[in-house]
Amino acid sequence: MRCFYVPKEQISGKQINILGSELHHLMDVVRLREGNEITVLDGEGGVYEVLLTSVSIRPPMAIGEIRSWKQVDLSPIEVTLIQGISKSDSMDMIVQKATELGVYRIIPALCQHTVPNLFGDKAQKRVTRWRQIAIEASKQSRRPFFPKIHDITKFNESLNVSQADLKLIFTAPSMDSVHPQKLKDILRQRTDAKKIQIIIGPEGDFTEDEIQDALSAGAISVSLGSNTLRTETAAIAGLAIVFYELFDCY
Amino acid sequence: MRCFYVPKEQISGKQINILGSELHHLMDVVRLREGNEITVLDGEGGVYEVLLTSVSIRPPMAIGEIRSWKQVDLSPIEVTLIQGISKSDSMDMIVQKATELGVYRIIPALCQHTVPNLFGDKAQKRVTRWRQIAIEASKQSRRPFFPKIHDITKFNESLNVSQADLKLIFTAPSMDSVHPQKLKDILRQRTDAKKIQIIIGPEGDFTEDEIQDALSAGAISVSLGSNTLRTETAAIAGLAIVFYELFDCY
Repeated sequence: MRCFYVPKEQISGKQINILGSELHHLMDVVRLREGNEITVLDGEGGVYEVLLTSVSIRPPMAIGEIRSWKQVDLSPIEVTLIQGISKSDSMDMIVQKATELGVYRIIPALCQHTVPNLFGDKAQKRVTRWRQIAIEASKQSRRPFFPKIHDITKFNESLNVSQADLKLIFTAPSMDSVHPQKLKDILRQRTDAKKIQIIIGPEGDFTEDEIQDALSAGAISVSLGSNTLRTETAAIAGLAIVFYELFDCY
Repeated sequence: MRCFYVPKEQISGKQINILGSELHHLMDVVRLREGNEITVLDGEGGVYEVLLTSVSIRPPMAIGEIRSWKQVDLSPIEVTLIQGISKSDSMDMIVQKATELGVYRIIPALCQHTVPNLFGDKAQKRVTRWRQIAIEASKQSRRPFFPKIHDITKFNESLNVSQADLKLIFTAPSMDSVHPQKLKDILRQRTDAKKIQIIIGPEGDFTEDEIQDALSAGAISVSLGSNTLRTETAAIAGLAIVFYELFDCY
């Protein structure tokens, strides 16, 4: 069944009103009409099975009737990704894959080695783009809660945006000055953790100062095997392993 | 230090001869000259620290002298990825990321839902491209053994190309007819496994027949959480988790 995003304010009683880019997608791309059925996600745990009752081209409009719905419970485990902002392609991939895997929140962090100069309008456009990618990936992976994509934040501030009972900073094998612990040892001691921060550097990795900031904020330094991983590979692998260890469904 | 690939046959005694695209990269892209030092990988476990002793533009040529070298031992654990061939972008990403993570062998498998029509020259070009991506990713991640990228193989034949003492087929949550086991339960019962096959479907997933073929070949069906993952996300996450569970360095 085709899946669409409709914010809660466009849902009233039994009726759903599809607007904007989702309306365009419904009418012009997948070309649905009256009588077709769709699945709607409101991004806040609501999953609706909907019958399209009125689709018109002029004016463009699509209205549906809710046939059944359920409210999914929010997971008690929250995984936050603090991601050093990387090149555009890598960041897009990270937002998409982190969403599929089930990340709760992404904080794009401005690091000393962050290459793209993001401020003002350019920064806002990039964040809007990431939010759109997160919505698309949520629909594709049928994720009832969409992740929160925060505004761009300075790295040292990003460490305090969310509460956490386990903070893990992933460092590269080449970072000689850090003595990372084995991820397995940490995760298996902390299967009680409920709010986890995964902290990943940009291309070029963290500086020593940034690592010290994270350690001072209570983060534990861990490594992902002996190969040097690209930032997006480290983010995806790190998240996959943390979900695997801490979620019952794996 | 810059890293280059030189096959063993271009290494004789203390002398290393850099040819082809690696020579182009050395001379025209990173513009190294006599007196510069480089790291050379032979793809078979050899890691060489090399001083460039002669670099000329006409004729194009770069010769180095080995200052020190070591032979890395091959891991006793072999992870094979049997990957249902997917769209070009996804496959490229899978080959790159699987290489970074440490896959031993990738078998690109022709499945019923494989979209690109690959045969003859086109198939050969694609395989050559994947091998090149694997070399680049090996250099980037400083992996002394390069993965083997097999020729394109029919899915049912791919299951018998390599020996395995643990075969895992990853199925989507929507595959109602399969009752996957928890990955965690399987991996923790089989920490003795040395040759592991990870079997991942293409976009559109496996057909029921293909899943039956895999089960008949001894594969165990497992799932990766409750979200529907893209094929490349499933491949990267599946590999990361298997490496994490079975390798001591995590």
